Amino acid sequence: MDKTIVNTVAKLAQSAFVKKEVPIGAVVIDAQGIIIGRGYNRIHGHKDATEHAEVRAIKQATKRLRDWRLDNCQLVVNVEPCLMCLGAIANSRIGQVTYFLADPAFGSIESRLTLAQLKKLFPKLIIKKVVDTGETKALLQQFFKQLRSKRSS
Amino acid sequence: MDKTIVNTVAKLAQSAFVKKEVPIGAVVIDAQGIIIGRGYNRIHGHKDATEHAEVRAIKQATKRLRDWRLDNCQLVVNVEPCLMCLGAIANSRIGQVTYFLADPAFGSIESRLTLAQLKKLFPKLIIKKVVDTGETKALLQQFFKQLRSKRSS
Repeated sequence: MDKTIVNTVAKLAQSAFVKKEVPIGAVVIDAQGIIIGRGYNRIHGHKDATEHAEVRAIKQATKRLRDWRLDNCQLVVNVEPCLMCLGAIANSRIGQVTYFLADPAFGSIESRLTLAQLKKLFPKLIIKKVVDTGETKALLQQFFKQLRSKRSS
Repeated sequence: MDKTIVNTVAKLAQSAFVKKEVPIGAVVIDAQGIIIGRGYNRIHGHKDATEHAEVRAIKQATKRLRDWRLDNCQLVVNVEPCLMCLGAIANSRIGQVTYFLADPAFGSIESRLTLAQLKKLFPKLIIKKVVDTGETKALLQQFFKQLRSKRSS
């Protein structure tokens, strides 16, 4: 995985963290490897449950290309996408999704669907997992630790 | 099903049809039965694959309530929701979804998932099907007939 992409995703997750959102960041990359869409989780700030990092990155990319079809593009996100996001990725015709860390609660790849189910639901989508160096996990742990201490104070 | 809701969904689907979009309409209804979100399919016009009727209705409802949580609300749509929309419905904490007509290609309820899978993925979501009087089917058939004749001319 290209270091620039990993760093951009990490920075986007950090932007979410700073705004007290679950630290998730995503990018859409075109066939030339250029980042054409960036997004980070903004559910609470925008008061909208559809404002996930992946959806926001897709929206930015479609706006840039002036086309809802993101053929030959791929999406990279630090946390396993939820069902809504996986559906949005497939609806946008993105060819490949790469994620770094599983999300046992809401993840819709390894966590809540089997490979056979995924193949049936998204026959054209290539799904990859790149093992995180620990950055995503550390940021998420920090986020939930702060949340817990805020709730108990 | 309340006649006002059925008529509103039909009108929204008609609005999509007039704009040469697949004729799908959706509403979000609050606990008092008041329509707080309306949406129709706008993928082509807005060049954005996430602009499905259900997502647009959810966005309008969350804007109105100034909250991403649509607890005690329900969503009604004329066509079986896709996976993205079903995910968005669950993410928004909508309690019930009602649809009129199956979508064998993209539908994520009866068409591409089993009841057991749905229960596992969306344990709290109540899913209902109200058999359409034929209006949705007729409008969809008219839409695809026009599309075919346009393509072959």
